[in-house]
Amino acid sequence: MSHNPDHTRPEHAVEADEPRPRITVLSDTAEGPASIERLRDYGDIRVAHDETSLREALPGSEILLVTDFRTEALEAAWPAADSLRWVHAASAGVDQLMFDALVDSDIPVTNAQGIFDRSIAEYVLGAILMFAKDTRANIAYQQQRRWVHRDTESIFGKRVLVAGAGSIGREIGRLCKAVGMDVTGIARRARDGDEVFSAVHAADDIDAHLPDADYVVVAAPLTEATEHWFDARRFAAMAKHARFINIGRGPIVVTDDLVDALVNQQIAGAALDVFEQEPLPAEHALWGMGNVLMSAHMAGDFIGWRDALIDQFLDNLERWQRGDTLFNEVSKHHGYAPGSA
Amino acid sequence: MSHNPDHTRPEHAVEADEPRPRITVLSDTAEGPASIERLRDYGDIRVAHDETSLREALPGSEILLVTDFRTEALEAAWPAADSLRWVHAASAGVDQLMFDALVDSDIPVTNAQGIFDRSIAEYVLGAILMFAKDTRANIAYQQQRRWVHRDTESIFGKRVLVAGAGSIGREIGRLCKAVGMDVTGIARRARDGDEVFSAVHAADDIDAHLPDADYVVVAAPLTEATEHWFDARRFAAMAKHARFINIGRGPIVVTDDLVDALVNQQIAGAALDVFEQEPLPAEHALWGMGNVLMSAHMAGDFIGWRDALIDQFLDNLERWQRGDTLFNEVSKHHGYAPGSA
Repeated sequence: MSHNPDHTRPEHAVEADEPRPRITVLSDTAEGPASIERLRDYGDIRVAHDETSLREALPGSEILLVTDFRTEALEAAWPAADSLRWVHAASAGVDQLMFDALVDSDIPVTNAQGIFDRSIAEYVLGAILMFAKDTRANIAYQQQRRWVHRDTESIFGKRVLVAGAGSIGREIGRLCKAVGMDVTGIARRARDGDEVFSAVHAADDIDAHLPDADYVVVAAPLTEATEHWFDARRFAAMAKHARFINIGRGPIVVTDDLVDALVNQQIAGAALDVFEQEPLPAEHALWGMGNVLMSAHMAGDFIGWRDALIDQFLDNLERWQRGDTLFNEVSKHHGYAPGSA
Repeated sequence: MSHNPDHTRPEHAVEADEPRPRITVLSDTAEGPASIERLRDYGDIRVAHDETSLREALPGSEILLVTDFRTEALEAAWPAADSLRWVHAASAGVDQLMFDALVDSDIPVTNAQGIFDRSIAEYVLGAILMFAKDTRANIAYQQQRRWVHRDTESIFGKRVLVAGAGSIGREIGRLCKAVGMDVTGIARRARDGDEVFSAVHAADDIDAHLPDADYVVVAAPLTEATEHWFDARRFAAMAKHARFINIGRGPIVVTDDLVDALVNQQIAGAALDVFEQEPLPAEHALWGMGNVLMSAHMAGDFIGWRDALIDQFLDNLERWQRGDTLFNEVSKHHGYAPGSA
């Protein structure tokens, strides 16, 4: 299900005789997200923001809406979930929800697949053009009031390897292809190329394809299989002129290895929106590196994303109330929504 | 004639019995451009770099190749051009060649149309994404080692007005359209929309269309009609959230009016590759403005552009030697190559 950033939806009809679902919202603040007011028309809402408040809220709740993608409270409070029939993550990544008790249960988990794709793809294309056009140096020269002409790179025909050829990776590929780049994907299993990916190789074969890439983009979910996927060996396999872009999850990368690869000029640069530790501590070496572009886990967060997330949840809530199959159900075995990698 | 940045050409066959054309190269340095060595196989080459050396070189020369697009030497040395039959500008803009004596002559003027299109379009798309993703602030926060999350804009469906719907403007439009933006053109005369431009309006009507644009891109040649085209009135007509991008020529803009519009927040930002005075003096107010992105007249200068220019000149030289019609001939009435605006 694809949502573009300007997505709006008609009001849901509330039937007076429909039983109101009991929904707990797990937020990162005590008051919950601002958009929570919109939910009150559709169910009895309780807000939790830590383990204690979650233990109080969960008993009797049928639905859990997780808006804090960093939470570890749910695993701790899980024994209080006595009536839960559906968990929805208002994020693309569900890594914090893949603990044994939930994975082993029959409770379906859905995610926000589709919401962030377009904005993340724009972020990635912007980062690629920043590198190619040497924009970072333009800004530095401007600050020094110096007129310094250089020749810069074209992105035409340049090769992008997208590690994680799912919903987000495909949109990244689509934008890069649209502007004349050559796009290859990496997925769990190899499959035929298509209108976006000239080829999709298996994750096991990634080392054979890393040397050919001008840009390597991580768009994979964080799972046991992808944790620390990009380590010293992977960076050593990349071309010296290549740039590394991570919009997936921080722990997919061994950060110390990435810093070494950048310092030792094994790769030419990195654009990072996600980090092993978030917020990244002020003393971390990455902040000071001139060949690194950084942002605060915000690549997907276009203006209006909170409302778009609520819209998507309400679409699924309607299905749930009708007894229909939910969309964006996560494969708890793989740790992401089917078709997303 | 379109050249992509990776364009290469086969060697020209040199016929031993062909008369060698006498070519003067007007450069900005006494030794001429490095690529000049490649020309020596195809003709007798003289190099000039100012009025005095040009007066010495011109007598007897049949062809003038102008690689210094800022030169004012040609008008001054013009009386020495006793044998000239062709002037080629190795640049997209020919504004410095449109002096009366050359305009009134029968000597054809050709330009480098096509060479810089792709690179300039990439630069413009990069600037648009810089603004939308607030990348300038990301870099500032990185320097301060601060983790500051913000929601940013999507470019999906955003409106780009391209003032100058010629060869460069069309490539800008093509890339913007490819990534989901809505593109409108401004040309000398209105014409029907096409696969790139949803509409092409007449320059006389520009004020009616400026308020609708999220991005206004100047891709026009500098002519009498476009000089100081963008003044206080134009900026006042733009939306407050709009950004202004100039990759055409500096004097198309009244720079003081642009500075005022930026200071007074009549518009939200500007990306400038060209300036009324180049190099821009270090004391100029633009350098210090946080909502301005600047570069040193280099948007078109992809790695390899000098060779691409020589290739293009040699293609036309072959035609000239065969007596065929030259391509990229400039309309001396309008001041740009036909089909370029």
